[in-house]
Amino acid sequence: MTIDETLATAVSGTPVAPTRGRLRPLGVGEVTLRPGFWKQRQDTNSARTLSHIEHWLEKAGWLANFDFQERRGREFADTEVYKYLEALAWEYGRTRDPDIDNRYRTIVRRVVAAQEPDGYLNTKYGRPGQPPRYSDLEWGHELYSFGYLIQAAVARARTYGPDELLDAAIRAADHVCAEFGPEGRNGICGHAEIELALVELYRLTGVRRYLDQARLFVERHGHGTLADIEFGRSYFQDDMPVRDADVFRGHAVRATYLAAGAVDVAVETGDGALLDAVTRQWRNTVARRTYLTGGMGSRHQDEAFGEDFVLPPDRAYSETCAGVGSVLLSWRLLLAHGDPRYADLIERTLFNVIATSPGDGGDRFFYTNTLHQRTLGAEPPADVQVPRAASNLRAPWFDVSCCPTNLARTFASLAAYVATVDDDGVQIHQYASATIRTGAHHLEIDTAYPADGLVTIRIVAGPDTPWTLSLRVPAWASGATLDGLPISRGLVQVRRRFTAGEVLRLRLPVQPRLVTADDRIDAVRGTAAVERGPVVYCLESVDVPPHVAFDALRLDPAAVPVDADGTVVVSLRPAASEDHDWPYRPAAPAGDAASLRVPLHPYHRWARRGPSTMRVWIPLTPER
Amino acid sequence: MTIDETLATAVSGTPVAPTRGRLRPLGVGEVTLRPGFWKQRQDTNSARTLSHIEHWLEKAGWLANFDFQERRGREFADTEVYKYLEALAWEYGRTRDPDIDNRYRTIVRRVVAAQEPDGYLNTKYGRPGQPPRYSDLEWGHELYSFGYLIQAAVARARTYGPDELLDAAIRAADHVCAEFGPEGRNGICGHAEIELALVELYRLTGVRRYLDQARLFVERHGHGTLADIEFGRSYFQDDMPVRDADVFRGHAVRATYLAAGAVDVAVETGDGALLDAVTRQWRNTVARRTYLTGGMGSRHQDEAFGEDFVLPPDRAYSETCAGVGSVLLSWRLLLAHGDPRYADLIERTLFNVIATSPGDGGDRFFYTNTLHQRTLGAEPPADVQVPRAASNLRAPWFDVSCCPTNLARTFASLAAYVATVDDDGVQIHQYASATIRTGAHHLEIDTAYPADGLVTIRIVAGPDTPWTLSLRVPAWASGATLDGLPISRGLVQVRRRFTAGEVLRLRLPVQPRLVTADDRIDAVRGTAAVERGPVVYCLESVDVPPHVAFDALRLDPAAVPVDADGTVVVSLRPAASEDHDWPYRPAAPAGDAASLRVPLHPYHRWARRGPSTMRVWIPLTPER
Repeated sequence: MTIDETLATAVSGTPVAPTRGRLRPLGVGEVTLRPGFWKQRQDTNSARTLSHIEHWLEKAGWLANFDFQERRGREFADTEVYKYLEALAWEYGRTRDPDIDNRYRTIVRRVVAAQEPDGYLNTKYGRPGQPPRYSDLEWGHELYSFGYLIQAAVARARTYGPDELLDAAIRAADHVCAEFGPEGRNGICGHAEIELALVELYRLTGVRRYLDQARLFVERHGHGTLADIEFGRSYFQDDMPVRDADVFRGHAVRATYLAAGAVDVAVETGDGALLDAVTRQWRNTVARRTYLTGGMGSRHQDEAFGEDFVLPPDRAYSETCAGVGSVLLSWRLLLAHGDPRYADLIERTLFNVIATSPGDGGDRFFYTNTLHQRTLGAEPPADVQVPRAASNLRAPWFDVSCCPTNLARTFASLAAYVATVDDDGVQIHQYASATIRTGAHHLEIDTAYPADGLVTIRIVAGPDTPWTLSLRVPAWASGATLDGLPISRGLVQVRRRFTAGEVLRLRLPVQPRLVTADDRIDAVRGTAAVERGPVVYCLESVDVPPHVAFDALRLDPAAVPVDADGTVVVSLRPAASEDHDWPYRPAAPAGDAASLRVPLHPYHRWARRGPSTMRVWIPLTPER
Repeated sequence: MTIDETLATAVSGTPVAPTRGRLRPLGVGEVTLRPGFWKQRQDTNSARTLSHIEHWLEKAGWLANFDFQERRGREFADTEVYKYLEALAWEYGRTRDPDIDNRYRTIVRRVVAAQEPDGYLNTKYGRPGQPPRYSDLEWGHELYSFGYLIQAAVARARTYGPDELLDAAIRAADHVCAEFGPEGRNGICGHAEIELALVELYRLTGVRRYLDQARLFVERHGHGTLADIEFGRSYFQDDMPVRDADVFRGHAVRATYLAAGAVDVAVETGDGALLDAVTRQWRNTVARRTYLTGGMGSRHQDEAFGEDFVLPPDRAYSETCAGVGSVLLSWRLLLAHGDPRYADLIERTLFNVIATSPGDGGDRFFYTNTLHQRTLGAEPPADVQVPRAASNLRAPWFDVSCCPTNLARTFASLAAYVATVDDDGVQIHQYASATIRTGAHHLEIDTAYPADGLVTIRIVAGPDTPWTLSLRVPAWASGATLDGLPISRGLVQVRRRFTAGEVLRLRLPVQPRLVTADDRIDAVRGTAAVERGPVVYCLESVDVPPHVAFDALRLDPAAVPVDADGTVVVSLRPAASEDHDWPYRPAAPAGDAASLRVPLHPYHRWARRGPSTMRVWIPLTPER
C-alpha cells in the first residue's frame, strides 16, 4: 500500500495499534461508555476540563507562543497544546461533535503556522534571541515535544483522517530522522516520548524509517549519551541500556514512557529479548516500587522511583502523569502478552491515581497524589497558577501543567482500554457500563461497579460459530462467580456458541478487606489499609469528632471493616499521645530471646569498613 | 574605648562573645583537648583535612577566582575559602603553628587583593561579563559570602589580632550597611549568615551600626522580601517574621543560621521577646523535627525540615552543615539561658552528626547523614568531585562543598564548646580529656568518654573563696553518680571551697539501652534503636553472615543489648521473607473490638469536602 492508502484505512480510533501481539485493541468508535463511574468522569472532562485547559493555555500564553508572541512558560509548554489537541481528537472520535472539530482546527492552524520550512517546530528554541536548536538535550524537551505533536496528529488521523497536523508531524518526524538518524547526532531526549510516538507514526503510515529511528533512540539510552547531572543519569534512564535493566528507576514519567516506547519497538521488530527486559522491569517495579494505589514515584526531589520498597506514604510523589505513563505501558504489555495482571494494574491505577487527580468540577487537579497528608491545606484560588507540587489540595493550573492535559487525553480515549479482540473472540479487561460493537460482536455491559460487584454482559449479537468471551477476574477478587459458579482469579474464558440476547452474570466480591504491606516497606510497618474491590480507602479528619486527635487513632487488626451505604466503617481507638521535649524514649526492657548474635557499632562508624547497608532503627519482632 | 582599643583586648579566642547572658564562653586558648575521642578528630583535621581542603580549593579553581581567573564553581564558592581561613585562624589560635600562620597570610593576600574600592568583594558578581551585584538576592549568596568573610576575620582578630582581612571585612560590612541599611535596599540574603557575622563584628569592634544592620536583616525576614519560589518562601525563612514562628522550617542550614543570628541580636539588644521566640522554635524543633542523631532536615528536595514528626530514616537528609548550624544555635542558647538541654543536643549532634561525616583519613566526608542505607554504594575515587548528595559513601569533595570547610572550622574551635564560666564558677558541658585554664581556675579533666562513663575532674588550682563547679548530667544518664552519690539528670552543682589537687568523680551510666520513638514518627513505627551514652548505634551488613537476609533481621524488644568490648551485641531473629508479585496482602481477620466508629471513604474522594488531613495506612492497635 502507499502511504495514502494506508492512511485511508487507518481511522481505527485506537490510541495504540500494534501490528502483532496477543490481543488487538478497539477504537473509541467501537466501545462506548454508558452512565457509570467512568462515564461521569468522561462527561466532566468533556463538559469542563477541555474548556478549562484551553482557557489556561491562552491565559498562560502557551498557545500564543505559536503566534510568535513573547515566549512564555517552561521549555515544554508546547506539549500542553499538543496533548490538548490529542484530547480533542479522541473527543471528536468519540462524539463527532462539530464544536470539538472546530476547536481542534482553530488551534491546529496556529500550531502549523509556526513550523519551520525544514520541519522543526518548537517555540522555545532556534528563533532569534533564543538558544539554538538541540543545545540542551538534557532539559530542552525538543524531541519530547515532537513526540506529543506526532501523537496528536496520529490521534486525529485515527479518528478523522489525515489533516494538516499530520503533514506537520510527518515533516517533523522526517526532520528528526534526518537530524538524529544513524548518520546524524548521536543524541536522545532527556525526556522519553519521541520513541512511542515514532512507532505509532510508523504504524499509521507504514514508513519504516520512523520505527528504525524509534529503535535507535531506545537503544541509545544507557550509554552516557546525555550529560551527567546531580540526580545521576538514571534520572533520564541513560544509566544503563534498556535491555539490561531489571527495574524502573529515575524520573517515573520518563521511565514509564521510555518503557512503553521500548515495548512498541520490541513488538514491531519482533525483538523478544527487549520485550522480556521491559516485562521483567515491570514485574519488579510492581512488586517493589509501586504504591498500593498503583502510584509510581516516591521522591519529590527528582520525581523519581525510590529504591526497592521505599514507598513512604508521606509526601508520596505518585505523579498523576506517572499514573498515565503506567497505564500506557501496562496497556502495551497487555496487548503483547494477554496476561490479566497488566489489566489489574491499569484498574488499580485508574481508580486510585487517575480518578484521584481531578476535582469534581473538572477544573482542579492533583499533580502529586500523596498517601498521607499531615496538615490542613488551603485551596489555591481559581485564577492562580501554582508550582507543580506545592499545593496539598487540587489546583487549577501549574507552572508545569502536564497533568491536566494528560488526564484530558486519557479520559477522552478511556473507552479504548475496556476491551480487546483476538481471532477467537472478545476480552473484557475493565468493568464499566459500556457498549462494545466490533466486527460481528455486539455486547452490552451493565454494572454499578465498583460500588457493586455484579457485572452483566448481554450478547446482543455475535458470530454464529463458537467464540470465546474472556473476562478478567481481578487478583483481589477471591470468591468471584460467573453465573453462580465459582471462578478462579486471573481469566475466565467461556468458549461456545452464544445465543443473541443471552446474559452472563459476573459477580466480583467487593466487601471491604484489610491489607498489610510487605514488611520490607519500612514506611508502613505496623499499619494496615482498607480496600474494597479495586478501590483503596482512606481516613479523613473531617469524619473524626473534633475532640479526637486524628494522629492518635488506631485500627484493631482483628476488626472487620463493614460496608455501610457506599462507605466502609472501621473501629478506631484513640491512643494516648503525649508531648515530650525529646521524642525518643527508652523501650520497656523484658526477658531475653537468643538466636543469632550480631555486634552493633556506633552510628558514626558506619561505612568505615567498606561498602555496607545500614539501619539505625531495627525492626522489632512482631508482638503476636 | 576606641575601635583599636577594643580590638587590642579582643584576642579572646572564642567563636561567640556575647556581652550579656547567663554564661561566658572560653576561648581556644583557655581550653585544650588532651588525647581522647575529640582530640583524635581535631588532630586529623589539623594533620589532614586542612591540607586536603586547600588542595581542593586550588584544584577546583575556587581560590584562583580571587586572582581574577575564569570564574569557577557555584555562586558561593568564595565562602569555602573564607571558612578555610576561619579554620586556619582557630587552628593558629590553638597551636600557634607558624606554618598555619603562613598559609593563612598567603591566602588572605589573594582574597584582599580582589576587594573593590567600595568594599564589595565577590568573585561571581559585578565584574565585566558577570551578573550585576545584588541582581539575585534569592540565590546569589552575596551577603552570605560577606558573612563568612567577616567570621574569618573575627576569628583571626580573636586568635591573633587585627589584620588586613579584618580591614577588608570592616570595609565589606560598611559597604553592606550602606547598601542595605535603613535608607538602602530593603533586601535580605536568600541564605542567612550575614546576621550572626555582623553581630560578632559588633562584638569585636563595638561599632553599633553592625548590630543594627544585623537586627534589620533579621526583622526583614518574613515579609515576602524575597521572591516566591517553587519550594515556597519558607525555604529561606521569608514566610513569616522570625518572632512569629513556632518551629524551624525550610532549608535546615538557613533556618539554624538565621536562628543563631536572631539569638545574637536578641541578646545584644535585650530583646526578650525575640529570644523567647527562637527558644520556643528550638524546643518544638527538637521535640518534633529532629532525628535521633540530632540531625536536622529530612528532605532531599529542598534540604529542608519536614513537617512535624516526618523523620524518615531512609534518605534522611541530615546535612552535616545543618548539624554545624544546630551546634552554633544551641551554643548561643546555652550561653543565654544556661540550660543543660542545649548542651545535651550539642553532645548528641557532635557524636552522631559531626563525628559521622568525616572519614578516618580526614579527606572524605558525608554531605548527608542518612539513618538507613538500603544499597551497597561505591566509594568515589579520591580525585573526583561529586554532586552534593549523590554519594552514599563519603566523598573527597563536592560541587557544593560547604560541609568539609564547615567541619574544619568546627574541629579547630571545638575546645571552645567544652566549658564556660560565670561570676560564680565554671560549668562543664562536654566531657573530654581537657585542660581548662581561665582566670584563677585550672582544671584537668580525664576520661575515656564516651567509651567509658567515668569522668575525673582534678581541681589543680582555683579561687580561695567558695565557687561553684557545675556539671551537666545528660538527659539519658539515669543513674549517674558524683563521688558515689546519686545525682539527678540536668545539672549537678557543687558550691564550696575546693582544695588544690582534689578530684571529683562523675560516673555516667553508659550501658546500652533500647529506645523507641514517639508513635507519631510514622516512619519508624514498630522499630527500636540502640544507644549507649550519647552514641547512637547501627546494624551493618558486614557484621551479618552472608546467608542471612539483612532486611529480614528482627530485634526482640524484650532482649537486652549487651556491652561487649566497645561494641553492643543484640539478639536478632531472621524473619521469613517472601517475594510476591504484589507487595500488599490481606491481613489475617479476627474478632471485633468496638470503640469509636468512623466511616472511611474512597481515596479518590480525598479532600473533596474541604481541607482535611488524610492517611491511607491506618496504624494498628499495638499488639501487646
